[in-house]
Amino acid sequence: MLKEIVAKIQPLDEAAMAAAKARQDILTKPAGSLGRLEELSIQIAGVTGQAIPAINDKVIITMAGDHGVVAEGVSAFPQEVTPQMVLNFLYGGAAINVLSKQVGARISVVDMGVAADMEPHPLLVIKKIAKGTANMTQGPAMSREDAEKAILAGVEIVEAEIEKGLDIIGTGDMGIGNTTPSAAIAAALTGIAPAKLAGRGTGVDDEGLKRKIDAIERALKANKPDPDDGLDILAKVGGFEIAGLVGVILGAAAHRKPVMVDGFISTAAAMIAVTIAPTVKGYLISAHRSQEYGHMQMIEWLGLKPLVDLDFRLGEGTGAALGISFAEAACKILAEMATFAEAGVSDKE
Amino acid sequence: MLKEIVAKIQPLDEAAMAAAKARQDILTKPAGSLGRLEELSIQIAGVTGQAIPAINDKVIITMAGDHGVVAEGVSAFPQEVTPQMVLNFLYGGAAINVLSKQVGARISVVDMGVAADMEPHPLLVIKKIAKGTANMTQGPAMSREDAEKAILAGVEIVEAEIEKGLDIIGTGDMGIGNTTPSAAIAAALTGIAPAKLAGRGTGVDDEGLKRKIDAIERALKANKPDPDDGLDILAKVGGFEIAGLVGVILGAAAHRKPVMVDGFISTAAAMIAVTIAPTVKGYLISAHRSQEYGHMQMIEWLGLKPLVDLDFRLGEGTGAALGISFAEAACKILAEMATFAEAGVSDKE
Repeated sequence: MLKEIVAKIQPLDEAAMAAAKARQDILTKPAGSLGRLEELSIQIAGVTGQAIPAINDKVIITMAGDHGVVAEGVSAFPQEVTPQMVLNFLYGGAAINVLSKQVGARISVVDMGVAADMEPHPLLVIKKIAKGTANMTQGPAMSREDAEKAILAGVEIVEAEIEKGLDIIGTGDMGIGNTTPSAAIAAALTGIAPAKLAGRGTGVDDEGLKRKIDAIERALKANKPDPDDGLDILAKVGGFEIAGLVGVILGAAAHRKPVMVDGFISTAAAMIAVTIAPTVKGYLISAHRSQEYGHMQMIEWLGLKPLVDLDFRLGEGTGAALGISFAEAACKILAEMATFAEAGVSDKE
Repeated sequence: MLKEIVAKIQPLDEAAMAAAKARQDILTKPAGSLGRLEELSIQIAGVTGQAIPAINDKVIITMAGDHGVVAEGVSAFPQEVTPQMVLNFLYGGAAINVLSKQVGARISVVDMGVAADMEPHPLLVIKKIAKGTANMTQGPAMSREDAEKAILAGVEIVEAEIEKGLDIIGTGDMGIGNTTPSAAIAAALTGIAPAKLAGRGTGVDDEGLKRKIDAIERALKANKPDPDDGLDILAKVGGFEIAGLVGVILGAAAHRKPVMVDGFISTAAAMIAVTIAPTVKGYLISAHRSQEYGHMQMIEWLGLKPLVDLDFRLGEGTGAALGISFAEAACKILAEMATFAEAGVSDKE
């Protein structure tokens, strides 16, 4: 089933990209003068296979999960904050609620593995694999079967969103402690030392940061994840919300939808997705560079360039929301601007 | 009259800023985790004097003017493009039309000194000082009286917009050749050599860039603008649309409205405004770093930090439009997010 999804992912449509580029060059502005927005419109043409793509339906999928590794004292906030923040998403009080509304995106909140029983709520999708992962310093965070199950849940969710109408997906996360598995994934894939990847997350102090780096080092030593096997890394040092996001990304690419990748946790999920299916890379847009220490190295490993750097370090999909507004602007520029001929404007001499 | 406007400009409201900062710190996110957006909300609180400011009415004021210095071969496009692009703004085909619509801003198009007779149009404000400036390599671009007249026209325009309801102003420009006077203003104020400030504008080739640098050097030599006298610099090596924008900025600050400063030309206008009235600095937000060569040095001279760098080099207010959407997002975060107490979320341990 995962193999089927991966097999569906096609390269970008070169003809649509060439047509989009040709149109950008005859719009009433010096060619290239809208920089990254022009590039973005061309990429989205390649993703969708449409020379003039439109972005109307926008979804941010925010996945939540808990992490056994919090027992090692790696986070500044208590684990109970994960379900509390999920409720905050459902009642509309979080940053992602405000920013998704601002950019006209709906949000989908998913319990992938919160360590508490979540009451049913019309806005909550429950795909709980377990109440939090196991402590990865002692052994794998989850079984390989559960990792695959979580990925397929992510695929299912993105496919349900596509049925409602969908032009772009933003990824988001919530999970106390989840910068720790994300840094572990980055270390396993890049070979960079955990001390050069792990940051302060929600704000741990120096002692907390030491415990975090130590926990990542012990988890890698205990589990020896195979850097060529994305599913192995995900199971051993990942998390349920990260696995769900891997599925969202793979499912989106399989259906030719662009993915606006949020910050540190979403980028770790993107790294796993690209390891499982390298072709997925063309479908990814890095929304922003997070303030979290190792993020830029992860973005560079993916070969991407973040759209903006606003010193965010929140997650939830907050950076992706702003990125989605750029993608929409980029497509509107391509679709709605007049050409030199249409407007009767003289081109370059 | 200009003195009266300058005298009205007050420092930022420290109490409103402290209140905004205190509120940001109790919203349901790690303190500071929305980085630049948090800073922006605090600045806008200081500008407006409101602890929880709202951004509803948004205007981008795009001012057009022509430049005698185009006779020196400094631009890649012919001068006729200035009135042609003004018409394109009026008929909705330009980039600024698309982007202002995307962010929910109205635009005000102003003829400050286009070198052609513009037909009346309900969306066009005509404040033409003259049909283009004089060639600044031969003497002053305009008289000191005309510079002041153009500034006051800008004040009048922003005051008319404030009467309609206005929470933030974006600046924009159109004028073939106007990166040349803008670079000359920057050189006069910073003392940096023209060769280290002038860029390719709409895309001049190597020979054109040499002519441009040479024209700026000759203009500075011929006019000897006084670096301590903003009006003198503006008159000698400025432009009518730049002068109008100086007035927009001063008028906005006098009425406690935040100004989203667009790219190279708008930043030159901001430098003149700050030279005339240093207190204006707190009212300025640098929307983006332009691809135009010397822009970052100008932003640094102002002591600002651009919100984003998307490799734009178009002007019109296109960067300001995107910046306005960030300002709106920042204020909505401050106003609409739940606090830890309201949402029942545990704060940091």
